[in-house]
Amino acid sequence: MSIDALQSKIRRLKTPIIVGLDPTPELIPPELRSAWENRPGPEALAECYTRFCETLLEALKDAVPAVKLQSACFSALGWQGVKALQEVLACAKGLGYYVLLETMRSDVGHIAELTANSVFGGPDWGGGRQLPYPCDGLVLNGYLGSDGIRPFQPWLTAQEPKNLFVVVKSSNPSSSELQDLISGDRVVHRAMADLVLRWNRERRGKFGYGEIGAVVGAQSPSIVQELRKHYDSLFFLVPGCGAQGCPVKYAAYAFDRMGHGAALCVSRSVIGAWREQADADYPQAALKAVEKLKNQLAAHVTVL
Amino acid sequence: MSIDALQSKIRRLKTPIIVGLDPTPELIPPELRSAWENRPGPEALAECYTRFCETLLEALKDAVPAVKLQSACFSALGWQGVKALQEVLACAKGLGYYVLLETMRSDVGHIAELTANSVFGGPDWGGGRQLPYPCDGLVLNGYLGSDGIRPFQPWLTAQEPKNLFVVVKSSNPSSSELQDLISGDRVVHRAMADLVLRWNRERRGKFGYGEIGAVVGAQSPSIVQELRKHYDSLFFLVPGCGAQGCPVKYAAYAFDRMGHGAALCVSRSVIGAWREQADADYPQAALKAVEKLKNQLAAHVTVL
Repeated sequence: MSIDALQSKIRRLKTPIIVGLDPTPELIPPELRSAWENRPGPEALAECYTRFCETLLEALKDAVPAVKLQSACFSALGWQGVKALQEVLACAKGLGYYVLLETMRSDVGHIAELTANSVFGGPDWGGGRQLPYPCDGLVLNGYLGSDGIRPFQPWLTAQEPKNLFVVVKSSNPSSSELQDLISGDRVVHRAMADLVLRWNRERRGKFGYGEIGAVVGAQSPSIVQELRKHYDSLFFLVPGCGAQGCPVKYAAYAFDRMGHGAALCVSRSVIGAWREQADADYPQAALKAVEKLKNQLAAHVTVL
Repeated sequence: MSIDALQSKIRRLKTPIIVGLDPTPELIPPELRSAWENRPGPEALAECYTRFCETLLEALKDAVPAVKLQSACFSALGWQGVKALQEVLACAKGLGYYVLLETMRSDVGHIAELTANSVFGGPDWGGGRQLPYPCDGLVLNGYLGSDGIRPFQPWLTAQEPKNLFVVVKSSNPSSSELQDLISGDRVVHRAMADLVLRWNRERRGKFGYGEIGAVVGAQSPSIVQELRKHYDSLFFLVPGCGAQGCPVKYAAYAFDRMGHGAALCVSRSVIGAWREQADADYPQAALKAVEKLKNQLAAHVTVL
């Protein structure tokens, strides 16, 4: 899928919300938890993660256009968790979601190439091409520059392009320590956005956005506004409005006048919503949390 | 192990060389390759990786003090590769190496905490504490600031401290794009080094180095020299002198007057040395490549 496909899906569902399937032991509801408590260890916990995520994928499939999987949540369990990640990615693709994988890595060229093959290309290790981590877009870090991006370029210009999202301005409290330093006439996170712009090589899809987007946290409305103004061809993934508590109003500045060009990323506030909804089971609670966020966002953004 | 333990090991072996066990299909020698060619697919390839790395670990154990494993090389194969990574880490620890794991991630707090548990802490998922990725130090990226470092702090100040190494100035050609931008009176990579200094909280081990070190590529002797001068408490991991071809002389500037405070990271030039040595099997070829590098370095640095 391409950035146009993502935007089209968002338009069809009228929901620019991406749900992060980032399981941790605390987020597993009691009804799944018992299977793991009866058989302690990473294998049973990983199986809980798979069931949890797959049930959520089934429940949310007409509600949100895209999901994002954080690789660290799964790999923290060891190989059993990575197996679960691969199963959940395949399930999400099978259900028709636009699927994002978040690795947050920044790599030298020959290492980035390994990752590119394993997420987009399908390396041939004999026995036919393999694609361990099928997805449509990858979230990564750009600190090492073009070398870590170049190996992905063939897939960004393919018939059905894949996407990258580079962390420009993250939503965590300490993001300012490096990202907001003044560098000449701009700040470091704008230097990063300028690199993303260059990597896009002025290509734009039919909605006006390039295949490489940017992660832009919602914590500062003025930064979101400024970035939207200066980078009108970059699609923004906007974290911060879920568990981190940034007002949805701030994130609204990430969208263009058509309500395009951005999507909100929320995770714990949706997949862990069962913890605050005693009357609903976990997929219902997640669906309700999505509906609530959808309504909050509708006060500020209309997707045309 | 601590940064003192790493420095002590280096002194004992008189070799500040860290071998990167970063397998790729091209680096697997013919004698192992056949097992995979007879049974194509990620499982047999992952088994080749395990055998390849474990044989090298056995061969190099009296020659080098430390090894570094690049997680992407293994995870590119899917869970079978991650299983191999876990086996190789356990083998390296068992043989007494100082063991580094390179993830190159930069994370928000609650995700960094998951990683910290899985590499240092041993999370309790029931059935006793588990440590999927046993290692002594982690190589990561600092673009997201303190939030991604804080979860590791308890282990950095423990009785037997673990270590972090933050990418300050990477060795790849495009590292300058962001890392060398002028920011006020310093460049971005020095702003990153200043953060590392702050994270170390002025603690120093008996050799004068803090538990959080820095990755400093060898491509520019003046940058290495300047960083050594200004950050005399940061232990440097120095990539670039292997397959990337930087002169060993440049890396020599990373060491202090005692020959302490730095280590060279080489991977392909050692583990793939069998490709240029027709008369040696791959562990012998690796050992020879280490000896050669050791001699080259001895012309510039003496470890006291």
